[in-house]
Amino acid sequence: MNDRRTICVVGIGAGDPDHLTLQAVKALNRAEVFFLLDKGREKSDLTGLREEILDRHVDHPYRVVQATDPERDRTAATPGYTPAVDDWRSRRADIYERLVRDELPEGGCGAFLVWGDPSLYDSTLAILAEVRGRGTVDFDCEVVPGISSVSALAARHRTGLNRVGRPVQITTGRRLAEAGGLPEGVDDLVVMLDAHQSFAGLDPELEIFWGAYLGTADEILVSGRLAEVAERILALRAEARARKGWIMDTYLLRRP
Amino acid sequence: MNDRRTICVVGIGAGDPDHLTLQAVKALNRAEVFFLLDKGREKSDLTGLREEILDRHVDHPYRVVQATDPERDRTAATPGYTPAVDDWRSRRADIYERLVRDELPEGGCGAFLVWGDPSLYDSTLAILAEVRGRGTVDFDCEVVPGISSVSALAARHRTGLNRVGRPVQITTGRRLAEAGGLPEGVDDLVVMLDAHQSFAGLDPELEIFWGAYLGTADEILVSGRLAEVAERILALRAEARARKGWIMDTYLLRRP
Ligand SMILES: C[S@@+](CC[C@H](N)C(=O)[O-])C[C@H]1O[C@@H](n2cnc3c(N)ncnc32)[C@H](O)[C@@H]1O
Ligand SMILES: C[S@@+](CC[C@H](N)C(=O)[O-])C[C@H]1O[C@@H](n2cnc3c(N)ncnc32)[C@H](O)[C@@H]1O
Repeated sequence: MNDRRTICVVGIGAGDPDHLTLQAVKALNRAEVFFLLDKGREKSDLTGLREEILDRHVDHPYRVVQATDPERDRTAATPGYTPAVDDWRSRRADIYERLVRDELPEGGCGAFLVWGDPSLYDSTLAILAEVRGRGTVDFDCEVVPGISSVSALAARHRTGLNRVGRPVQITTGRRLAEAGGLPEGVDDLVVMLDAHQSFAGLDPELEIFWGAYLGTADEILVSGRLAEVAERILALRAEARARKGWIMDTYLLRRP
Repeated sequence: MNDRRTICVVGIGAGDPDHLTLQAVKALNRAEVFFLLDKGREKSDLTGLREEILDRHVDHPYRVVQATDPERDRTAATPGYTPAVDDWRSRRADIYERLVRDELPEGGCGAFLVWGDPSLYDSTLAILAEVRGRGTVDFDCEVVPGISSVSALAARHRTGLNRVGRPVQITTGRRLAEAGGLPEGVDDLVVMLDAHQSFAGLDPELEIFWGAYLGTADEILVSGRLAEVAERILALRAEARARKGWIMDTYLLRRP
């Protein structure tokens, strides 16, 4: 008998419960414990989606362990300020270590449900690697890829991310603001984690494909030249954010 | 009654039939006709996966229309040589136009099954946009995102694609060969469509996460510093390619 624990890190897609893959459904059905990390903030809608997914797709009795993610330093709300992020990550590692060791029996399988795809701007894998590195609790780790908000954005706008034979770069709002435009040699740039609408000051000839709350009932899509649509996106974004109390948006910028 | 045709462009994931999303399964079940474009070459394994997916998941009678994709100019086998690609695309548009107009009744729903995610290095959306622009046949287009080989690669290596707050770029083997290394400001570079193992001549301190036939029974994974693993990847790749007659591989290069 194998008494190693298994942790599945399962990408659940970026908002639409039907983004879930068949592989994810199978992985969820192997788990006896689900770890839900609550941000203790506005994003209870997102926790709601996770619970809906479990409810709908897991066909055996299961346990949900809720934990509260340590609050992240507000000044680091936009990532890039690495020391604060590192400290935050190691405090999260303490929590994850405790969850895996104390809440999952030896030989058991537990799952973390990760928004979008676990490979994009998500710290779960890095935290679990840190926990493993500590050597205090032994476990296998399996990763199930998910539909990222980037793929969802492109699908909803029915566009490709790259032009034939050309690269596409994925970056953060903070980096875009620092650079003030698209990097050299890059015609297509996807921007995530942008709390400051960094597209607003850019070359008005750039095309934007913007999406908020992708895959959900609140989805908003706008595309066009910045000259024509930037104002409208700013207004829609401010209004939606005020109404719902939070927003998640992503966009593709394209050189004409 | 609506007599517009609907075309669903469905991402089916990058090799594992369980990459299919619930949304994709639903889309397949709305279609009465499936268009399979055969490259008339070694990739019959890939057509096989499409047929397996239809067989397993579509629960109503359906029609499959096979068409042969025009051969692409060999010199353009690595993309980037845009004129040849454009001509090839417009010949494909002729075929797609005929398929939609002649093989799909008015008001009907047809589907194209696209490898991986339709937004990454795939021409289906551009071709359908071209067909639509011709105004000769009217149809709606819906896109279902899929698990890309990029997400699959990261999941199998249990790694993120980006470092905290840093960008990731996705590019082609041809462009990497031209650049001779990672673009400035980019620490993580994903390389697709590399027929010439362009990683081989690069800075040996770079880390590589390489995957071939991801998601299939033939999957091969290798990771490590180029100094340590480049030779092994070259040998494994040559051996697998000779044995199967074709190869699909992708890799992430990471600055130390
Ligand atoms: C911490 S990152 C996580 C990304 C996630 N792993 C993924 O694959 O999409 C959060 C960022 O993803 C983007 N995002 C995630 N879900 C989104 C959605 N449903 N609509 C628009 N943007 C979304 C936003 O840019 C947000 O700031
Ligand atoms: C024409 S592109 C299509 C990419 C696809 N749309 C996607 O999202 O993965 C083909 C390239 O994708 C990569 N690829 C696709 N499937 C793969 C697999 N199963 N394993 C490794 N690489 C794959 C290879 O780099 C290949 O040259």
